Amino acid sequence: MWQVKEEDLASISIGAGILGTGGGGNPYIGMLRAREMIRRYGPVEVLSSDELGEDDKIVCVGGIGAPTVGIEKIRGKQSYDALIALENHLGIKATALISNEIGGSNSLEPLIPASISGLPVIDADGMGRAFPEFHMKTFFVYGVPYVPMVLADEKGNIAVIPQALTGKWVERIARAITIQMGSVACYALAPMTAQQVRNTAVQNSLTLSKKLGDSVRKANQTKSDPVQAILEVNPGRVLFEGKISGIQRKTTQGFARGNVTIDGSGKFSDTVMEIEFQNENLIARLDDEIVCVVPDLISIVDSEKGDPITTELLRYGFRVTVLGFPAPDLWKTAKGLQVVGPSCFGYDVDYIPLELG
Amino acid sequence: MWQVKEEDLASISIGAGILGTGGGGNPYIGMLRAREMIRRYGPVEVLSSDELGEDDKIVCVGGIGAPTVGIEKIRGKQSYDALIALENHLGIKATALISNEIGGSNSLEPLIPASISGLPVIDADGMGRAFPEFHMKTFFVYGVPYVPMVLADEKGNIAVIPQALTGKWVERIARAITIQMGSVACYALAPMTAQQVRNTAVQNSLTLSKKLGDSVRKANQTKSDPVQAILEVNPGRVLFEGKISGIQRKTTQGFARGNVTIDGSGKFSDTVMEIEFQNENLIARLDDEIVCVVPDLISIVDSEKGDPITTELLRYGFRVTVLGFPAPDLWKTAKGLQVVGPSCFGYDVDYIPLELG
Repeated sequence: MWQVKEEDLASISIGAGILGTGGGGNPYIGMLRAREMIRRYGPVEVLSSDELGEDDKIVCVGGIGAPTVGIEKIRGKQSYDALIALENHLGIKATALISNEIGGSNSLEPLIPASISGLPVIDADGMGRAFPEFHMKTFFVYGVPYVPMVLADEKGNIAVIPQALTGKWVERIARAITIQMGSVACYALAPMTAQQVRNTAVQNSLTLSKKLGDSVRKANQTKSDPVQAILEVNPGRVLFEGKISGIQRKTTQGFARGNVTIDGSGKFSDTVMEIEFQNENLIARLDDEIVCVVPDLISIVDSEKGDPITTELLRYGFRVTVLGFPAPDLWKTAKGLQVVGPSCFGYDVDYIPLELG
Repeated sequence: MWQVKEEDLASISIGAGILGTGGGGNPYIGMLRAREMIRRYGPVEVLSSDELGEDDKIVCVGGIGAPTVGIEKIRGKQSYDALIALENHLGIKATALISNEIGGSNSLEPLIPASISGLPVIDADGMGRAFPEFHMKTFFVYGVPYVPMVLADEKGNIAVIPQALTGKWVERIARAITIQMGSVACYALAPMTAQQVRNTAVQNSLTLSKKLGDSVRKANQTKSDPVQAILEVNPGRVLFEGKISGIQRKTTQGFARGNVTIDGSGKFSDTVMEIEFQNENLIARLDDEIVCVVPDLISIVDSEKGDPITTELLRYGFRVTVLGFPAPDLWKTAKGLQVVGPSCFGYDVDYIPLELG
């Protein structure tokens, strides 16, 4: 057990940005929102899955929408409203909260209702990264029901999906509702048991994101290489280094979609990397050859500072390093790849797991 | 109290088509669907509002979507599924059902869950005609809550809107869900009390639609004028007679939108009528002068047979008579016109009530 205090948020938001592979919502804004609540309501207890009891009801809360909108239309306590609406719908009380994805602001989202309600959060999540679509959670792949799902917006609108044919249908319906709610909303999901959290979640991911951020901040203080500092905490590979030379981005169908082109420098001189994204970075090609693809993680960080750069903030001229990390094992099974493999995003290529150099 | 038997459906569907002002869903298909259920489960009891008791819980059920899609993607028992989901959501049991709109197939929609469940339907509805948008119901204008609303599709998906800022927000969110469900779905609404039904519904409208249909059918049998037969039952005015010379129609944002042009004949020779519709006919202009506008009813019927022609079935060459009927009084108040007056459909004109010739 540990506590998330105000001073931990900066590190968590850096780590969550790196694990977020460009998406999951802007982590800096998530940090500001969580800080506001923790200042008002106090720190939040973090439990590992092992510390859960058999009567616990663990509710996943998160944000849904386009990150491009999320930086303009700032959320408040809608994930708390969604939690209360879920409790009312089912006639139950949550005893702990869990993040749907450790990437981006969604890693911090449960801290907001947790701080308000005094509930602990679990040191685990449903992706071990970020993914653009609702049904792409390890929870659902390994048997947790995807309904009921409750959505809340800042205007006081609530929608519940109590029954759906598949998780993909929840995504379709929830996305359409989210667009009406202003392309950004918050949600709460069917409560999980302790055993479900232990068996279906990616473990210790809040701790990992904090360690990643601590390491980057320490490197900056000691003027050592922040990219190496990241790779020491989370094993991965430098896929590319260079300068952003092109960015195409549009907000469509509730997502931020586009691609970024990076001209190589240093040992990558005279080569070009192109990365396509749908909220998150999905596929990285070096001179047209695929070097990393979902579900493996593709993260873009500032080469000098190690700060993650989310897809809505990519700009011409940024000097960046592209990092690849292996996906959590829960995604590398046949079941997992059916939900988040390259074909799920329209890429007619095989998943070839990233090898660590 | 009376019963809707199989042999009553033909008349009701004709009358509902006339009152539907072009929309409310194709009444012939609604008739086939209701007939199938009544053949299987038996006739349905019809109660007037006066016959309701103080413990009654009257649930409004209906269809939502684009009539152009409704004639291709036929609904089954989804309004029954929506009713059950509503009962489960609230932990109550409905004791009677009521139509949301007497126009088109929606007049017949409650017969389907009523027949399956053995519940009576009420001889009243929430429009006294048809309107394209969800929140345009007399119920809501006069204080019945617009939430919870439950939507069901044929695939097994259910969505609930338990809380919303306004009825218009329910419409926005429900429409987006409906489009995902395939542009056609069914819904069930918060139960009403007997007093609410008495005070906020348009009364005796199922009886009126049956009488209208009986009168048209009798005129056809006796080779007398079906248009006069309609006007004898429901006072109104012949706005135009002629031949359809143009039709523009597209299915967009979950609605069938467009306009129809009619070249005059007989006493209307050398004049042209244009009618604009959004599922329902909204405004009729005779040589550019408005002669009838929402909430008054604009109905297009076959000149020879008196059969109503809904907007999705309008075709070049049809010889038609355009009828105008005064809106129910509940719509003619300031409160009513705020929801269904011309400006609610983007027309910057005053509502001038139709005068009977």
